[in-house]
Amino acid sequence: MAIRTGEQYLDSIKIRNKAEIYVMGKEVKDVTTHPFLKPSVMAFKATFDAAWEEDTKELARAWSPFINEEVNRFNHIHRSPEDLAAKVKLLRKLSHKTGACFQRCVGWDALNTLWIMTNIMAQKGKKEYKDRFVEYLSYVQKKDLALAGAMTDAKGVRTLKPHQQPNKNAYVRIEEVTKDGIYVSGAKANITGVAATEEIVVLPTRAMGPEDKDYAVAFSIPTDTEGIKIIVGRQLNDARRLEGGDIDALPYFYNHEGLVIFDHVFVPMDRVFLMGEYEFTSQLVEVFSAYHRQGYGGCKAGLGDVIIGASMNLAKQLGVEKASHVQEKLTEMIFLTETMYSAGIAASLNAVKVCDNCWWVNPMHANVTKHLVARFPAQISQLSIDIAGGIIGTAPSEWDLKNPKLREYIAKYLQGVEGYTAEDRLRMVRLLENVSLGVAFQIESVHGAGSPAAQRIMFSRLYDLNYAEEVAKRLAGKKTDLQWKPKAEPWRESETEKLVKS
Amino acid sequence: MAIRTGEQYLDSIKIRNKAEIYVMGKEVKDVTTHPFLKPSVMAFKATFDAAWEEDTKELARAWSPFINEEVNRFNHIHRSPEDLAAKVKLLRKLSHKTGACFQRCVGWDALNTLWIMTNIMAQKGKKEYKDRFVEYLSYVQKKDLALAGAMTDAKGVRTLKPHQQPNKNAYVRIEEVTKDGIYVSGAKANITGVAATEEIVVLPTRAMGPEDKDYAVAFSIPTDTEGIKIIVGRQLNDARRLEGGDIDALPYFYNHEGLVIFDHVFVPMDRVFLMGEYEFTSQLVEVFSAYHRQGYGGCKAGLGDVIIGASMNLAKQLGVEKASHVQEKLTEMIFLTETMYSAGIAASLNAVKVCDNCWWVNPMHANVTKHLVARFPAQISQLSIDIAGGIIGTAPSEWDLKNPKLREYIAKYLQGVEGYTAEDRLRMVRLLENVSLGVAFQIESVHGAGSPAAQRIMFSRLYDLNYAEEVAKRLAGKKTDLQWKPKAEPWRESETEKLVKS
Amino acid sequence: MAIRTGEQYLDSIKIRNKAEIYVMGKEVKDVTTHPFLKPSVMAFKATFDAAWEEDTKELARAWSPFINEEVNRFNHIHRSPEDLAAKVKLLRKLSHKTGACFQRCVGWDALNTLWIMTNIMAQKGKKEYKDRFVEYLSYVQKKDLALAGAMTDAKGVRTLKPHQQPNKNAYVRIEEVTKDGIYVSGAKANITGVAATEEIVVLPTRAMGPEDKDYAVAFSIPTDTEGIKIIVGRQLNDARRLEGGDIDALPYFYNHEGLVIFDHVFVPMDRVFLMGEYEFTSQLVEVFSAYHRQGYGGCKAGLGDVIIGASMNLAKQLGVEKASHVQEKLTEMIFLTETMYSAGIAASLNAVKVCDNCWWVNPMHANVTKHLVARFPAQISQLSIDIAGGIIGTAPSEWDLKNPKLREYIAKYLQGVEGYTAEDRLRMVRLLENVSLGVAFQIESVHGAGSPAAQRIMFSRLYDLNYAEEVAKRLAGKKTDLQWKPKAEPWRESETEKLVKS
Amino acid sequence: MAIRTGEQYLDSIKIRNKAEIYVMGKEVKDVTTHPFLKPSVMAFKATFDAAWEEDTKELARAWSPFINEEVNRFNHIHRSPEDLAAKVKLLRKLSHKTGACFQRCVGWDALNTLWIMTNIMAQKGKKEYKDRFVEYLSYVQKKDLALAGAMTDAKGVRTLKPHQQPNKNAYVRIEEVTKDGIYVSGAKANITGVAATEEIVVLPTRAMGPEDKDYAVAFSIPTDTEGIKIIVGRQLNDARRLEGGDIDALPYFYNHEGLVIFDHVFVPMDRVFLMGEYEFTSQLVEVFSAYHRQGYGGCKAGLGDVIIGASMNLAKQLGVEKASHVQEKLTEMIFLTETMYSAGIAASLNAVKVCDNCWWVNPMHANVTKHLVARFPAQISQLSIDIAGGIIGTAPSEWDLKNPKLREYIAKYLQGVEGYTAEDRLRMVRLLENVSLGVAFQIESVHGAGSPAAQRIMFSRLYDLNYAEEVAKRLAGKKTDLQWKPKAEPWRESETEKLVKS
Repeated sequence: MAIRTGEQYLDSIKIRNKAEIYVMGKEVKDVTTHPFLKPSVMAFKATFDAAWEEDTKELARAWSPFINEEVNRFNHIHRSPEDLAAKVKLLRKLSHKTGACFQRCVGWDALNTLWIMTNIMAQKGKKEYKDRFVEYLSYVQKKDLALAGAMTDAKGVRTLKPHQQPNKNAYVRIEEVTKDGIYVSGAKANITGVAATEEIVVLPTRAMGPEDKDYAVAFSIPTDTEGIKIIVGRQLNDARRLEGGDIDALPYFYNHEGLVIFDHVFVPMDRVFLMGEYEFTSQLVEVFSAYHRQGYGGCKAGLGDVIIGASMNLAKQLGVEKASHVQEKLTEMIFLTETMYSAGIAASLNAVKVCDNCWWVNPMHANVTKHLVARFPAQISQLSIDIAGGIIGTAPSEWDLKNPKLREYIAKYLQGVEGYTAEDRLRMVRLLENVSLGVAFQIESVHGAGSPAAQRIMFSRLYDLNYAEEVAKRLAGKKTDLQWKPKAEPWRESETEKLVKS
Repeated sequence: MAIRTGEQYLDSIKIRNKAEIYVMGKEVKDVTTHPFLKPSVMAFKATFDAAWEEDTKELARAWSPFINEEVNRFNHIHRSPEDLAAKVKLLRKLSHKTGACFQRCVGWDALNTLWIMTNIMAQKGKKEYKDRFVEYLSYVQKKDLALAGAMTDAKGVRTLKPHQQPNKNAYVRIEEVTKDGIYVSGAKANITGVAATEEIVVLPTRAMGPEDKDYAVAFSIPTDTEGIKIIVGRQLNDARRLEGGDIDALPYFYNHEGLVIFDHVFVPMDRVFLMGEYEFTSQLVEVFSAYHRQGYGGCKAGLGDVIIGASMNLAKQLGVEKASHVQEKLTEMIFLTETMYSAGIAASLNAVKVCDNCWWVNPMHANVTKHLVARFPAQISQLSIDIAGGIIGTAPSEWDLKNPKLREYIAKYLQGVEGYTAEDRLRMVRLLENVSLGVAFQIESVHGAGSPAAQRIMFSRLYDLNYAEEVAKRLAGKKTDLQWKPKAEPWRESETEKLVKS
Repeated sequence: MAIRTGEQYLDSIKIRNKAEIYVMGKEVKDVTTHPFLKPSVMAFKATFDAAWEEDTKELARAWSPFINEEVNRFNHIHRSPEDLAAKVKLLRKLSHKTGACFQRCVGWDALNTLWIMTNIMAQKGKKEYKDRFVEYLSYVQKKDLALAGAMTDAKGVRTLKPHQQPNKNAYVRIEEVTKDGIYVSGAKANITGVAATEEIVVLPTRAMGPEDKDYAVAFSIPTDTEGIKIIVGRQLNDARRLEGGDIDALPYFYNHEGLVIFDHVFVPMDRVFLMGEYEFTSQLVEVFSAYHRQGYGGCKAGLGDVIIGASMNLAKQLGVEKASHVQEKLTEMIFLTETMYSAGIAASLNAVKVCDNCWWVNPMHANVTKHLVARFPAQISQLSIDIAGGIIGTAPSEWDLKNPKLREYIAKYLQGVEGYTAEDRLRMVRLLENVSLGVAFQIESVHGAGSPAAQRIMFSRLYDLNYAEEVAKRLAGKKTDLQWKPKAEPWRESETEKLVKS
Repeated sequence: MAIRTGEQYLDSIKIRNKAEIYVMGKEVKDVTTHPFLKPSVMAFKATFDAAWEEDTKELARAWSPFINEEVNRFNHIHRSPEDLAAKVKLLRKLSHKTGACFQRCVGWDALNTLWIMTNIMAQKGKKEYKDRFVEYLSYVQKKDLALAGAMTDAKGVRTLKPHQQPNKNAYVRIEEVTKDGIYVSGAKANITGVAATEEIVVLPTRAMGPEDKDYAVAFSIPTDTEGIKIIVGRQLNDARRLEGGDIDALPYFYNHEGLVIFDHVFVPMDRVFLMGEYEFTSQLVEVFSAYHRQGYGGCKAGLGDVIIGASMNLAKQLGVEKASHVQEKLTEMIFLTETMYSAGIAASLNAVKVCDNCWWVNPMHANVTKHLVARFPAQISQLSIDIAGGIIGTAPSEWDLKNPKLREYIAKYLQGVEGYTAEDRLRMVRLLENVSLGVAFQIESVHGAGSPAAQRIMFSRLYDLNYAEEVAKRLAGKKTDLQWKPKAEPWRESETEKLVKS
């Protein structure tokens, strides 16, 4: 059967012992037990468990025509607008289970991107990529693999194109082509969850021109391939996990990002999905970005729910949950959360079909989703901090609570309403601290799936300003000018939309 | 054929001579020629024309099983999520044609509300209302009537219930019941487009208790029924229309609201759809509000497009359309506009089926839509004013331009980039002034379909705070507490959602 | 005595019969009785009355060393930080008296600008301008004249410098120099209150280079000089004033802006204060702008008070003044209003002395003040609209109230809490409509004293980014790097600050 | 000489060996070397060094009439508006030196509060408190002591008054009075810098009634008094300091808060400044809060400068510092920072004199300052994160950089523009992470000196809504109603303002 359990995933990832992974300057052999990485592995695991748990089973599975079997939805190719909506709903639900980023979306979005792009390339006469991809996809679905998606390059000087960089490997580059495969070098940065995966799907990160040909490369590769080094990044409050407690470093689930270095790594040809066709890079990036931006309407709304719930609980502990200003703040948090979600749902259900069995998210709504996510979480956090009180920055450690000389004092002075204990308060404060100010909500929300400026570029490209100007000119003109043909949606035929019709 | 042309509507409304309509203290006999009302009639007419114009025909028509014929969508009962999305798309498109509120949605939403409510009442044993309504609906569809929807009562003291008011008619009230019908008195306020309609559909405006029984009343009635007086409200810049020009009072289309007074008006029994069943008023209000809130994602986004276009054009006239701060502002306006629209689309496509052939909008998304509309238009306006420059508050009148002694000076000093004339600039400035600061965008956006506080109440009711708290408590608890069943959407089973299952 | 009464001003302005003033395409002979202009004249008059009324007398007068007499503060040269603060306080108070812009600040700020600039030019060897200016100032103070300040040129294509414009007069230009004076042509736009003034002080509107020499000109001139034409601009709801009522066109005081055309106008040499010295234009604009930006912290805060008061009153009329969401909105309006004011106070009391007896406002605080004013009024308006209810866009006209057939209905259905009448409600709604959405609060707040982009340019210029970077570099460096010398205020020595030391 | 050097402070605090201080559940004997506390001690030390360093010497010293000597300004009683402004300027400058909260303001504000309150009590016949306070103040100034101010009690159930609490010590309470002194029990929470101080000044935290008499207590006491236990709170990223590096835990200076427990602690009578006079508690809290709210306009603006500088530097490292969207974001950060500062300056220079030699900050401006500080830092942080890029949440640790096997890769892939190294980038990213998301900027800004709701209560109390309503009523009334007496500032005579006149 194609669908693994969480335990099966754990077993597999535990013995993946050729991977070269560093945390805090030291190599890590078992990611499932390392205190920095374990919460991240557990969050990954939740995506496998979801396919077996009663409450998520239905959402977390889908039937794949590629292997004629049910698969874990995280490796599924979307076949309808409803499939896309199921993604958003599943992500929100998993945020409720983990309170963290579960890191499996990037690989999923990479698969769907390659599905569309290899179809388009096939239509343009480049058939081999689609054949290779379908074979690879079937393999991934059958094995139910945990994938990382790797887009963002090191990038060097931001104003220079890949071939202009002083560091020739500032973008991942094909160094050598043989008949069996290619050798690549470079680095991919901010790669979500990579240390907990079995394979990495690599995509180019920007539109490229003819001179950037060597940088126009997409492929997949096992995470523990020789020549790959993974340096896991630091995160807010990470060092607390080394203390061995179970309060201060909440939540139990977490996420990580890694810098992935490719040092002359060999990729067999049947795993290469783009090799020099720079003319498709712009579309590829746009297709991927929109998929990934849509998803944030689910997972970040789910984190919003966690924060709303934590704030509500802390308000109750202090007896102020009915105060009108607390109610106003909670309502505002709900509104902000549901706005992000509604945009994600629109991006899904108002999807566009771009080729046979290729359902792409609506790019305008998807960019709206992500741009909202780049703004609202900071507001939600601030409201939660407001409700929580100053204690979120001043609470004693769990070690104080556990010190017999201090326990009684803390129990007495941290308690609010009877029925709640000081430990209840500390636990909730720590959850809120780590989620509200954590990387997933504060940083990933801004930069994941493209920084705000990237969405703004898409707004200008997708929206037809000339059309809008024409609307205004008619209405401002003579009365006789008013007969004409408006569009319901003033969106432009962008390159990607042209793609839809190719 | 059931679908009228705009001209047919005009002919009909012109001779509707029993209606008692006042503007500026004087009775108006022909609304199609009165300078205050004509733009409003023309906007209404656009909804009829839309069914015949090539570019809108498809969106503006729908097949009705009630009369087994195509009808104008504005009188259609939604039969699918796609129908609901078609509403939002049609509204955006009509805003492009009119630059104004075309005023026919309230009646439309009232019909759909009565369809759901009479179905529900029928399920609970009150069958007569559904029978009456289906007959009435068929009549409306066959005649393709222009309807007003009348919700908001005079309300008197806001903190008192209907039966507690010093003014017994602060809410529309059944004064007398006979076997043939009922007599009602009271007033409905802020009734959009009422002077341009043929019939008024009256609904209760709030949840009521047993003591408010006499106020629990829904019915429909021809606009020119005896005892009805319509006092048309003033609007920003309305008096300019009396001047006879064609620039300063732009746009050519506009909207109006009226105070509708019922002075012991007789309603025949077959037009009565609720008569004392106060227990359904809460649901009725919720059903209607959500329908109406969804629509704003279309029409207000469409006005956003008009304002974006006008701003772009003015920037071009001054040669600054490429300045980075102008680009940033235009992009922000696009983002705000598309956010409102995406929520409206989500409310439509993520619809809920509440009875056979009853498709209701998603209430959470619909409330999000309206709450965004209560906030973003003021921001869009301010950005447009920023781009337009001070001239939006200081431009000469068209009469200055038309004065031969001044024309040349104005031509010389109001021109920016060659190719545009001073008249081009004046026309665009006036369009922007009248749309950006106009009632439809500044006031209706805030208060139409319920004031912001009303949406906030719905957020609290729809969102399940206890569930969110449970999510947080699990994550903040002991590790062993983590097995449980989350929901994808933390929404509560509100009264209306219970309704869904009834 | 140098200080006039309001009546004396009226008498003077009434007979100023050579001025060529147009409203709605027609020439106006008596501005004190014309319905469009009278409210504006009355607001001007309030600045004269203020010097005689007990409650404002002290603030509105100041002792002038130039004529060794008390003068109306509106013609006073600031001699201390306290003088600058008195300006802000007086403006707030006058807003309470008028609910409008009283239009006399621009001329005042122009006088103070010329005082500083002619001093600086004198220090650099150009002594004649200071002599002329002191003489002119003494004349203005003795006569207590009503001045307009005229900065903004027609500007043509915004991206071109004056000498590059297709229209050679897009900026006011010296056409001819004789030994007695100069001849100028061009137009000044958006000139506040100009039709109600006795003299116009003209200043250049931008920094200029050597090729723009002919455009580097400052002078003063009687408003009714031959060759000057004033075209009064339209404003929101202006046409209502023609109706003759006393409710719908509230407030009684208002403001206007005019387009001032100079058609080869002769200026005698003793009224010329800059003639080709382009190298001072940048400083001059900066000095003037900062003065004018500071003042907005007073007058716009005062309008904020009017709107807060009107919202409070309407809430009381409906019985909702204690509702928590209404209280929250009122509090937010107070916060926004007081923030603008506090910045204005800081700009005053943290003033800088730039030459003997030259007190300039703090330029950073002054730009903060104006930038806040460009943002917050729209928010205040929206909050007021929220509290006021939909009626602000739908209320019947006063003519309906005055129609005996309708009066009773309106009285009945517009009343809220007993003790308030329908007329009370209408009056307050109209005041709010006309102030909240009026030009002074919505447009002037954005564009007056320079559009938001202009303040942003000043922020970049005044703030020392290099210094801030140095701060960060020290803190991020090695521990040994930490000894150094910070500044309390990271402000740059801009051109104007260099000026301070010249 | 009364002014100590930083070294003298260090020596003193090092040997303060009776203090019972806990960090992470363990008692700490030397706060100057403990890795959690050392940065906090260093920040405190900076306030002493400031009085000796050339660049801050002038600002950091003031002449005290109490001991007729120069004192460190942090123990000075303000004698003029300029003194108050010097406070704000000094705080901004010290933020530039430390990038942290230097924690000495609370004690300073407590001294100034007691100066005013003991004067007022003396006027009302309670002379002993003033005598005791002057003696204590002289002692503090002569010794140049490091003080903590302790306001916030544990508070228990927020909706209950002190005497109603289930925990009788939820507020610090007088348990016993003897002729020599009093015994107190309870806890003060969130006490800034307390572990690095020599004395604690304790004040009541809320207005109290007659039944709360035992809780109306103010006193001072050495930090190492028997019966006092200090539990130092955790903070974001605190555990990194245990690692021993010099990059990841930047900045070198930091702040801490502690929970201070009083377990039947004896206070000698000459250190008691309030003992049961509950009727002064409301005024006392208001006086203190306003002082403390004012200060935030300095120190938080200073942190804003640090963040602006760090963002600028990171933009340069990537070569994007001239991109228009980066420029816009930097400008916005400047505007937000300078707005906070300008309000702080207004609160200082527009001060009120409340008794002989008692200068209190302007309470309205001070509350505006803090409310801005409760909002803007989160916006500044978000903008800085936007500029910094995703790396702020994903950067490798310094231990990776220091690992010879990885160093070269990191050097290659983290470098941007040549001339900057990967270490430069890491250092700046870490500084930004720790300052932008740190407790001082994210939490203290919201809750320090009172949560946002507390400022909002003050806005309602200080602002005279009735006056504003009167303004509106006059303007909306008949023309004949317009003669009247406005105020320049619509502020109410609050209890504290009445105090001003007592």
